[in-house]
Amino acid sequence: MNTIGIGLLGAGTVGGTLIHRLVTEHAAIAAKTGLDLQVRRVAVRDPAKPRSFEIPEGMFTTDPMSMIEDPDVDLVVEVMGGQEPAGDLVLRALETGKPVVTANKELIAARGDELIAAAEKSGVALLFEAAVGGGIPIIRPLSETLAGERITRVMGIVNGTTNYILTRMAEEGTAYADALGQAQDLGYAEPDPTADVEGADAAAKAAILASLAFGTWVGLDHVPHSGISQVTATDIRYARDLGYTIKLLGIAEDTPQGVSARVHPVLLPHDHPLSSIRGATNAIFIEGPAIDTLLFAGPGAGGDPTATAVLGDVIDAAREILAGAQVAPRIRFAPSSLADFGAIPTKWYVRLEVEDRPGVLAQIAAAFGEASVSIKSVWQEGTDDEATLLIVTHRAPEADQENALRTVGNLDCVNAVAAAIRVESEEA
Amino acid sequence: MNTIGIGLLGAGTVGGTLIHRLVTEHAAIAAKTGLDLQVRRVAVRDPAKPRSFEIPEGMFTTDPMSMIEDPDVDLVVEVMGGQEPAGDLVLRALETGKPVVTANKELIAARGDELIAAAEKSGVALLFEAAVGGGIPIIRPLSETLAGERITRVMGIVNGTTNYILTRMAEEGTAYADALGQAQDLGYAEPDPTADVEGADAAAKAAILASLAFGTWVGLDHVPHSGISQVTATDIRYARDLGYTIKLLGIAEDTPQGVSARVHPVLLPHDHPLSSIRGATNAIFIEGPAIDTLLFAGPGAGGDPTATAVLGDVIDAAREILAGAQVAPRIRFAPSSLADFGAIPTKWYVRLEVEDRPGVLAQIAAAFGEASVSIKSVWQEGTDDEATLLIVTHRAPEADQENALRTVGNLDCVNAVAAAIRVESEEA
Repeated sequence: MNTIGIGLLGAGTVGGTLIHRLVTEHAAIAAKTGLDLQVRRVAVRDPAKPRSFEIPEGMFTTDPMSMIEDPDVDLVVEVMGGQEPAGDLVLRALETGKPVVTANKELIAARGDELIAAAEKSGVALLFEAAVGGGIPIIRPLSETLAGERITRVMGIVNGTTNYILTRMAEEGTAYADALGQAQDLGYAEPDPTADVEGADAAAKAAILASLAFGTWVGLDHVPHSGISQVTATDIRYARDLGYTIKLLGIAEDTPQGVSARVHPVLLPHDHPLSSIRGATNAIFIEGPAIDTLLFAGPGAGGDPTATAVLGDVIDAAREILAGAQVAPRIRFAPSSLADFGAIPTKWYVRLEVEDRPGVLAQIAAAFGEASVSIKSVWQEGTDDEATLLIVTHRAPEADQENALRTVGNLDCVNAVAAAIRVESEEA
Repeated sequence: MNTIGIGLLGAGTVGGTLIHRLVTEHAAIAAKTGLDLQVRRVAVRDPAKPRSFEIPEGMFTTDPMSMIEDPDVDLVVEVMGGQEPAGDLVLRALETGKPVVTANKELIAARGDELIAAAEKSGVALLFEAAVGGGIPIIRPLSETLAGERITRVMGIVNGTTNYILTRMAEEGTAYADALGQAQDLGYAEPDPTADVEGADAAAKAAILASLAFGTWVGLDHVPHSGISQVTATDIRYARDLGYTIKLLGIAEDTPQGVSARVHPVLLPHDHPLSSIRGATNAIFIEGPAIDTLLFAGPGAGGDPTATAVLGDVIDAAREILAGAQVAPRIRFAPSSLADFGAIPTKWYVRLEVEDRPGVLAQIAAAFGEASVSIKSVWQEGTDDEATLLIVTHRAPEADQENALRTVGNLDCVNAVAAAIRVESEEA
């Protein structure tokens, strides 16, 4: 039997589920893979804490460094989360020549280039299938199966919390705050939901997707992001009437201006495959000249799906150990220019509260025109002496769009820029 | 530079596209993967035939065996199709210690166990990502990323021709023969469409999916299949009114009766993710306790998507060669009992042409009851003295359902069993 000793950094939801499955499904995994996977050490802060799984008492340690260096540990699984101390521990394990499996998108987005280089130097694997899309196989397809494709764009619903909130808002007309409260009640959102609702979680995943899709390192600093806390049920309704669904997307593109990654709410045409992804489900949509389009959809979070992804990586890393060789470099980064977000062509949906008198539309159209942004469609709804204008622009560089918005917002006849959300559609 | 010499068996649509891309994208692939992939020999029947790609004249050979044994060839790509001589050539290459990449579902479904064993014995890779789902990454996710999941069911639209035909019939009310003609005009269907429309192509893919998902070899002989040539626009319309879409599915299940794979037209609830897959697109839907459900969708055929899948495998196999080790066994088969199709619980939609007189429904219901099949719903439409009965049964063993159908068909009051199609829904 091919025995592999596993050491875990962390034993929270994902770690606990993983340990439970390594124990209860030991025989099934052995039959399917020929591997005898043994949990040997578990590094935690508080060994006395009640856990959902059972392991022999002596297996816990509060000294992660000794766990990493334990000769009985062949393979390190990092499921403690957060950038540090996880990052330094992972780096240490790789330098010691031990392959690492991690579910930590924050860490990979922040220090992925350094860690991948350390793994390559030691000739061991660094695998992170669970870091994006939870249980959806996406890292391996992107970095291996599609290695021969010139991917042009990856768009993903990579945060289940926000997609759940947007779905409630769209389907029931729930206000943002109420939908967030429901998500918190169901455990989909944290007590402090900032990382999810303001887009930071999705930005880390977008950075990873962009780096893998385009083979160039895109650090988290290069991913402008905004979240959904400013999205209103009103705009969701207006967008629907115009033929769009509002989703929070991570978008990674290979543009003439360079490689780009960004996260923000987006109006997507109803018939786009990502528009129909409901609730906490995640989905990733890949475009390329040969494959045309691919869609991957499934559970983006949760202990069970994430543990499945981690387990797949553990099995893969174990095979490499037994083969005595790294079939890497799995991931190589070539230098490439990153696009300035201001140069990326975007389209906008803008909702303006304006005075309802003749000449207003002409003034607004002129302001857009001066900023070199042309208007695709205008829809006007009057209410007493104020009117609502819904404007969808044609594609123009992001900087011009923002400039146009500022100018329009300063017009006397414009009482408020009530909303401004980017639009992703195939048209110019 | 890490140079790998490639020999091709066949240079048709997929092979030609692959050669073209290996040449035109050589630098891009090298930058992304560190590999210098060189086409060295191409074995074809007729070197004089006009081709869509250019290679030096001396690269062609009509002697595939000499190509396999050429020391300049490190890796063999089989894209000639068909069971033989492809099978013996692939076996020979593996025995010679050369990894093989193939897109040949027919071959893998027929001789996969033997070829996988030969690959393992020689310690080289046998990769076939392109054999199922064309450009959709599915083989690697199933056999690697999901290696730690106890998959319960895989359902797939794995034949684009039939999905195109069914989509035309559903959306435009086109008759089967006309929709087939359109598919042939567009090149989606062969002049002899039998393998597609009668389900044999899908059966080979279902056999492969079942074997990988459940880790037990399911030979093509164990995949009962039927196609769509008996599906009428009338039944598609009736099914729609009852809340279902008709799709040709490959279904692989781990049941209490054993592992099962089958292909037939199916009534799927409108809200099932596979119901919305239109045209020639393929999609695979995977269920398991931890991942819940995963959906993969994309182009199931065509030179370009298929070449992308082959190229991903080539890159993977090349990495193994350079690492000097096989990180296999990628796929292991453990013995497991295969289910007898007659024992699998199925549900049926049945359309009967019956005499329109009192007592007929009672007679029919009694006949179903005698065969231990209970009826879930009945919908009747009268036309003069004949009536149409649409019956949906509850779940019962396939053998009982077939038995019930025979008995009902023999009743005097039943003029014809106009249609009988299985139903897949979550309810009993």
